[in-house]
Amino acid sequence: MTPIQDKTIIERLNWRYATKKFDSQKKISEAHWATLAESLRLAPSSYGLQPWQFLIVQSSDLRDQLTPFTWNQTQVKDCSHYVVLTYKKKMDETYIQNFIAKNAEVRDIPASNLDDYKKLMIDNLVKGPRSETINWWAQRQCYIAMGFLMETAALLEIDTCPIEGLDPAAYDKILKIEDSEYATVAAVACGYRHADDKYQFAKKVRFDSASVVKFV
Amino acid sequence: MTPIQDKTIIERLNWRYATKKFDSQKKISEAHWATLAESLRLAPSSYGLQPWQFLIVQSSDLRDQLTPFTWNQTQVKDCSHYVVLTYKKKMDETYIQNFIAKNAEVRDIPASNLDDYKKLMIDNLVKGPRSETINWWAQRQCYIAMGFLMETAALLEIDTCPIEGLDPAAYDKILKIEDSEYATVAAVACGYRHADDKYQFAKKVRFDSASVVKFV
Repeated sequence: MTPIQDKTIIERLNWRYATKKFDSQKKISEAHWATLAESLRLAPSSYGLQPWQFLIVQSSDLRDQLTPFTWNQTQVKDCSHYVVLTYKKKMDETYIQNFIAKNAEVRDIPASNLDDYKKLMIDNLVKGPRSETINWWAQRQCYIAMGFLMETAALLEIDTCPIEGLDPAAYDKILKIEDSEYATVAAVACGYRHADDKYQFAKKVRFDSASVVKFV
Repeated sequence: MTPIQDKTIIERLNWRYATKKFDSQKKISEAHWATLAESLRLAPSSYGLQPWQFLIVQSSDLRDQLTPFTWNQTQVKDCSHYVVLTYKKKMDETYIQNFIAKNAEVRDIPASNLDDYKKLMIDNLVKGPRSETINWWAQRQCYIAMGFLMETAALLEIDTCPIEGLDPAAYDKILKIEDSEYATVAAVACGYRHADDKYQFAKKVRFDSASVVKFV
């Protein structure tokens, strides 16, 4: 595989910042978008269950409707691709059964080989104590995918802005998923920084390494 | 900046898998570890608040103690760097004040310039409705960092295994953080796959792109 240098990664992560103003004229190419979408899809999740759906809001009308429920942040309208991360509200046996069927299909093995795996997931997530906090569990998984999306974007010199400042219930209604199995948790605006965005010149604020990464 | 190809990223993300058996003889170099640690530190978080600490468990004795509280998974002992992700249990004015001070220092501006920003955070996270679910909020942020750690590792051809199958309370006790402001949420074993780990040859199981990434 083509080696990637340590310094290249560090350079990109320092280049990244939460973009406040996007250049609405610049769009992400199809090739780059395909890589971003694959980064979401290939992200790891607990048991590999992928308790998520990612809605890419390209309708101008929908973006208009979402804006007031996003503290009127301009990124919603101006970015190239507006990604809404939704999590599966409930984990049930049907979903796990479908996942096992997919697993058996991809790996070309009998689904019955995976009975122990299935039981483990059901006992933990559907019947066990984790079922009571399953929505928080699913939201956390979405944030791994959010991380993958933002890091891949930075590697490709694509800007992003993660957005938690939104009204999830209003989003669900506008996006017509309120009666579905999924609900909004956050969004990521993706595109290219506007030359006028002063925040691109601000130094990144991070606590010192010694206070956040500790050897024990 | 040195360009990174789309196909290189896709290749690495497909190469990544949740490593079940690490080669205990292979250690991550200091240069690569520095990049992984920076990926954790530079990860984005809500308001940039970094409500986390990452404990790198290198003590063999501590790893022995943690193993039975990790379903006896061998990755705890065999990996090169064992990263425990801990989140800040409570968000208070003191923490936000410290963050503002750091911000003012790094950007060389008076802290008073950031009064609105400070008030916004306090009103939302300390006094607002989000304060009631602040631990879940902080855990989610940790998962962004988890994503950054795992993607950077894959780029450097370093293996990882994310671990939620652990007893957080036992971890807190063994790691002596039970009386601190932080608590365990998950771990990531980092290192190099063992040649015998059969899972490296298993096809990755993901739902089809059309069912997880939807344009609206």
